[in-house]
Amino acid sequence: MHDVDHESVTMITMRHSIAVDAGGTSTRAMVINDDGICLGIGFGGRGNPISDGAESAAQAISAAVTAALISSGLAGDAIDAVSVAMAGGNSLLHKPEWLRDPLDRLGIAPEVVVEPDLLAMFCAGTPQPGGYALIAGTGAIAAVIGNGHVERFADGVGWLLGDTGSGFWIGREVARAVTLALHGREPETTLVEPTLTKLGITTDPRLVDGRPASLNALVRHVYARSPLALAQLAPLAFADPDDPVSARIIDTAAAALADSVLTVYRPDIPGPLVIGGGVLNGQPRLREATLSYLAQAGVELPLVTVRDGLVGAGVLVLRRLGITVDDAIFTTLHRSTSERLSNQTS
Amino acid sequence: MHDVDHESVTMITMRHSIAVDAGGTSTRAMVINDDGICLGIGFGGRGNPISDGAESAAQAISAAVTAALISSGLAGDAIDAVSVAMAGGNSLLHKPEWLRDPLDRLGIAPEVVVEPDLLAMFCAGTPQPGGYALIAGTGAIAAVIGNGHVERFADGVGWLLGDTGSGFWIGREVARAVTLALHGREPETTLVEPTLTKLGITTDPRLVDGRPASLNALVRHVYARSPLALAQLAPLAFADPDDPVSARIIDTAAAALADSVLTVYRPDIPGPLVIGGGVLNGQPRLREATLSYLAQAGVELPLVTVRDGLVGAGVLVLRRLGITVDDAIFTTLHRSTSERLSNQTS
Repeated sequence: MHDVDHESVTMITMRHSIAVDAGGTSTRAMVINDDGICLGIGFGGRGNPISDGAESAAQAISAAVTAALISSGLAGDAIDAVSVAMAGGNSLLHKPEWLRDPLDRLGIAPEVVVEPDLLAMFCAGTPQPGGYALIAGTGAIAAVIGNGHVERFADGVGWLLGDTGSGFWIGREVARAVTLALHGREPETTLVEPTLTKLGITTDPRLVDGRPASLNALVRHVYARSPLALAQLAPLAFADPDDPVSARIIDTAAAALADSVLTVYRPDIPGPLVIGGGVLNGQPRLREATLSYLAQAGVELPLVTVRDGLVGAGVLVLRRLGITVDDAIFTTLHRSTSERLSNQTS
Repeated sequence: MHDVDHESVTMITMRHSIAVDAGGTSTRAMVINDDGICLGIGFGGRGNPISDGAESAAQAISAAVTAALISSGLAGDAIDAVSVAMAGGNSLLHKPEWLRDPLDRLGIAPEVVVEPDLLAMFCAGTPQPGGYALIAGTGAIAAVIGNGHVERFADGVGWLLGDTGSGFWIGREVARAVTLALHGREPETTLVEPTLTKLGITTDPRLVDGRPASLNALVRHVYARSPLALAQLAPLAFADPDDPVSARIIDTAAAALADSVLTVYRPDIPGPLVIGGGVLNGQPRLREATLSYLAQAGVELPLVTVRDGLVGAGVLVLRRLGITVDDAIFTTLHRSTSERLSNQTS
């Protein structure tokens, strides 16, 4: 593999776009050309305006875009289109005015198009116009995609109302199972010790104020933090394959994730199923159980796993420019993005 | 019934106490004497320092105590003991310094003793030294009481970790069932229309941004408010006795409430079971189902229903003064409190 020669691809008719994958953990931006060649990548902090605030998200996205431009050797006025993929529901993000100023300062004139992060994940997995996406990270959401657009979502309604099977949901179930076990009544579970250890709580069964001291400490710990911090406990559910309480949690999560796919399933859209998100990607047991529930319901789809939506945001911005992203461009996008990533991080 | 003659009971050897039931909805205070005669009652706002803030709770308690003193015709320096019943776990309330200043300003010198609100509820139901309490309001908690003290709690660990079967828990299950029904997959439920109506949401099945418009509105409504606001939906679960989704929610709640009692049950403590809290008191169906689960487990206890912990706070403050609260004093406390209440509100 050799470095892309910027001069040779920056022809007079060649346009340049910026694709951003703005996430709740970090933000990635890249500059690509019409051939799908990645010319530069940049990183920023948490970039979701709903969970992090518009100002903070604008800073993170601006930092990532600035770094991507520097890495590409292009100025902001060379950019012909900008797409930003992020979570939160289209309706809240239709007019991202909060992004206008930082982009103006970079000399980037085109209007910003915000795309659902789930659609970017899907487009990172396949250049096909239709199929399904299932993401389980801190949250959980499924969707059917037709003609390049999300037609219908299932779940993704947040931690209070749903996101069943997500990292938050699994982590909360772990905490609840430990709470019950510390009460001394529920079936014993090997989740107790690792959970207390992870939270820095000493095992202490002595009653203090009518409760085991460890339980008092767990309660204090949990309510002193954001509810979503419970997602950190999710990996513990996969630690002991012989623990029946863990098995029940994983099984319930898998059934709910499969149910979300079945909610949006349409026999006229044969797939593929693109899956992503920290919990689904990191826990093969959850993935296998989910696919097994789908198979039981008679739904077997070609499977693609994706790590993030950056390449998909690239697909979406090219489509905005009227480019048909065929297998060749899709492959170029993936290959050149990987090359850039390994060059920048090595 | 005739009015109590204050002069005749305010003898030189007669002491006076203040008992406060400080709750998350309102605060009640009363002045009683050693015979258990209620001399005055006063009311205040939300009085829990953990959920409402110490300053706000101090104001509410101070307002209730001031009104009770005025109603009793006594000055603050005539008070020999003060007990305040409130929720939140003893360890957070052992030293209520935040109450010192407002009581000093009223001329009330004795140290404030904070008691668990659950113990006050129990003592409002029975003068016996031992038994069980089960409270399901916005939260849910059970306890075994021995020798006048809470020996062990079950649940009561808050809305994120437990409080299973509480008003919050039932309300959240209602919201989740409606969320699933609006997705169009879960078994239909008659909960949908009343829930949307209660929240002021128009029924609109049209897809907007890949979701039914009503679902988008529900999600926006819920996350714009405190999670605990979901408790307002709890009564809807009891509206249609023929709805299987509602029935499952009530059944699961009842099983969890019964399980909390069984967690603390000890054959050497034969009862009674004092029950209270808005959901358990207001919903006979939940109460019957809970008792049925207990009976299935072989636990049948004499049942007492209480509305609040005010009389129980009175029992506790008398015991602090070394008085044995026998059936006669207990009955006097209840009768004179009721009389005062009906005089003040008529």
